[in-house]
Amino acid sequence: MLVKGKHYRTIWQNPGNLNSVFIIDQTKLPFSFSVKELKNFKDTAKAIERMQVRGAPLIGVTAAFGIYLAALEARSMKSDIKKTIRFISDASKILSQTRPTAVNLFWAIENSLNKIKTALTAGEAVSISLANAQKMAEDDVQVCEAMGMNGLELFKLLYREKKLKRLNILTHCNAGWLATVDYGTATSPIYKAFESGMDLHVWVEETRPRYQGGKLTAWELGEMRIPHTIITDNAGGYVMQKGLVDVVITGSDRTTLNGDVCNKIGTYKTALAAADNNIPFFAAVPVSSFDFNIKDGINEIDIEERNSNEITVTEGLQGKLIRKVKIFPEKSPVKNFGFDITPSRLVTGLITERGIIHPRKSEIKKLK
Amino acid sequence: MLVKGKHYRTIWQNPGNLNSVFIIDQTKLPFSFSVKELKNFKDTAKAIERMQVRGAPLIGVTAAFGIYLAALEARSMKSDIKKTIRFISDASKILSQTRPTAVNLFWAIENSLNKIKTALTAGEAVSISLANAQKMAEDDVQVCEAMGMNGLELFKLLYREKKLKRLNILTHCNAGWLATVDYGTATSPIYKAFESGMDLHVWVEETRPRYQGGKLTAWELGEMRIPHTIITDNAGGYVMQKGLVDVVITGSDRTTLNGDVCNKIGTYKTALAAADNNIPFFAAVPVSSFDFNIKDGINEIDIEERNSNEITVTEGLQGKLIRKVKIFPEKSPVKNFGFDITPSRLVTGLITERGIIHPRKSEIKKLK
Repeated sequence: MLVKGKHYRTIWQNPGNLNSVFIIDQTKLPFSFSVKELKNFKDTAKAIERMQVRGAPLIGVTAAFGIYLAALEARSMKSDIKKTIRFISDASKILSQTRPTAVNLFWAIENSLNKIKTALTAGEAVSISLANAQKMAEDDVQVCEAMGMNGLELFKLLYREKKLKRLNILTHCNAGWLATVDYGTATSPIYKAFESGMDLHVWVEETRPRYQGGKLTAWELGEMRIPHTIITDNAGGYVMQKGLVDVVITGSDRTTLNGDVCNKIGTYKTALAAADNNIPFFAAVPVSSFDFNIKDGINEIDIEERNSNEITVTEGLQGKLIRKVKIFPEKSPVKNFGFDITPSRLVTGLITERGIIHPRKSEIKKLK
Repeated sequence: MLVKGKHYRTIWQNPGNLNSVFIIDQTKLPFSFSVKELKNFKDTAKAIERMQVRGAPLIGVTAAFGIYLAALEARSMKSDIKKTIRFISDASKILSQTRPTAVNLFWAIENSLNKIKTALTAGEAVSISLANAQKMAEDDVQVCEAMGMNGLELFKLLYREKKLKRLNILTHCNAGWLATVDYGTATSPIYKAFESGMDLHVWVEETRPRYQGGKLTAWELGEMRIPHTIITDNAGGYVMQKGLVDVVITGSDRTTLNGDVCNKIGTYKTALAAADNNIPFFAAVPVSSFDFNIKDGINEIDIEERNSNEITVTEGLQGKLIRKVKIFPEKSPVKNFGFDITPSRLVTGLITERGIIHPRKSEIKKLK
């Protein structure tokens, strides 16, 4: 999408030197727009771990590029194919330990490794892993665009049915283009609708603790000049109570066979507020992030408990300097749960690249 | 309650010099504990305006002490009773302009002025206004203690019924002793239960945007050595989903005749999560904060929209310095709704100083 009027993706091969990859360092947003070069798989692992890249689809694509960079390293050491495979396999273990809940990460790594198995030389491992990473990136863009077009149809329907002059959308966290290669998942329908000339406004829940809503989604929407307003997560219920929201749309890190949606902490409370006010709640779910092996999200998904300093330390600007400040009493214990489960009964529908479906086993299993 | 092991109230007369009043400067918490002397009514007005004292009950008591300090000033100028009354009346206008929505503030000032009307000399105005301020403070402590004892009975019941080894309480915002003269409203049952030897743990929702949960409630509980854990507001739903909460208890700024609870923004979402998980939700409501004139909270209560910099600017410690940092994109619009309405259907009961009641008109009107 656009940054300062110029088109970017979140990850791309260095056009001047094919041995490295560029990403947008998302930890610097919204304070500065900074592009970072990843020169080897360890850079890639660090970028995922430090959340310089984040969002399930983008993490997957980044890991695939990480495997490619590992293959490049193996080739530069003049490894034979056995050593190359071992090197890449070791690298993949490091890559897979960067984010414990990211299904796309494991899937991308496994997918890469499976393809590389057919390589006869280190050179072939390089070209196979590169082609794979590039294909994953292109596929992701296509998937996001397709979700956008499906979501656009939904928005048009709401517009007509409710005779709206302006569509008010509420979103939580960042399931935006920054979380994918381009377009985003939950934001893709918003971008497609805005491009189609639809009058819309987005309520952006700030999304504590990391503020991905207020910091990233608001930044994305601002750069695209889409009308939006940041509110606290706490205020999401209030704007719904007041009739100021027509539809809620979020992303999903993992969706079960029964349609339970695992997503950024707070999504569950937001979905409860939507249900209580008869506002449709949709999750944008690429088929790749369904987990067909589990049914009950609450009992079967382990929730990542993250470092408490994400809650106790806030980063922001003082003048032009980025500073970190501690906001709570030093001695108080803090727990930082990263995700929660929105049970399928609170979900109106799932927007996938293959259409919008009900959050039911009978419909989800057809996607397998 | 205790601070560094020593008992404090939030406001008290200077024992060495009866011509001034001490408060805890709450804007410095949780970073430093600082006692401030108020020497005249203007100091008092500033303390309310700058939120060095906050919380509806404490604001009322502080204003009453402000009237006393105004009477002292009038006497020191050797004013006759007419001039004294005029001076106090002018002071009361300044005091009443400090916080636009604080019902207790207006009530406390009016109450003081009415009593002073009977004074025949400046000296009598001083003694009447002092007795009135002291009585308001004592009454507030009694009300809070009574709510605490009623809440304690409720906790004991839960303990027995659910055969608990430890009672897990979740609270939102600060309805603690810092918001009153002592004990607090929502925290009073917690303090009474802890004093009675009950094993308990408190989940403290941080309460964006001003973090009164993470900054004040956590500080209070820490000083009392009560086990507690700070979580984001977003995580409140998750801990309930996981069965880690036995009861939710919050304060209330205003409760309608039908039992709708107006309280700090986010209370509604928290109450929804409690209802969805069959966890009882109680609001601690002193009889003085019922509004018997209105029924429907959502349609009849105007919600204060506050300065957006409460959301966009976060204050914290860098080393030993208190700094303010801006956290969001400069250009993104922000709206800051201060309160929301929890409809009575989500409220299990109201803890008052006169007993615990159902949130129903038939029971509430008896308190009038």
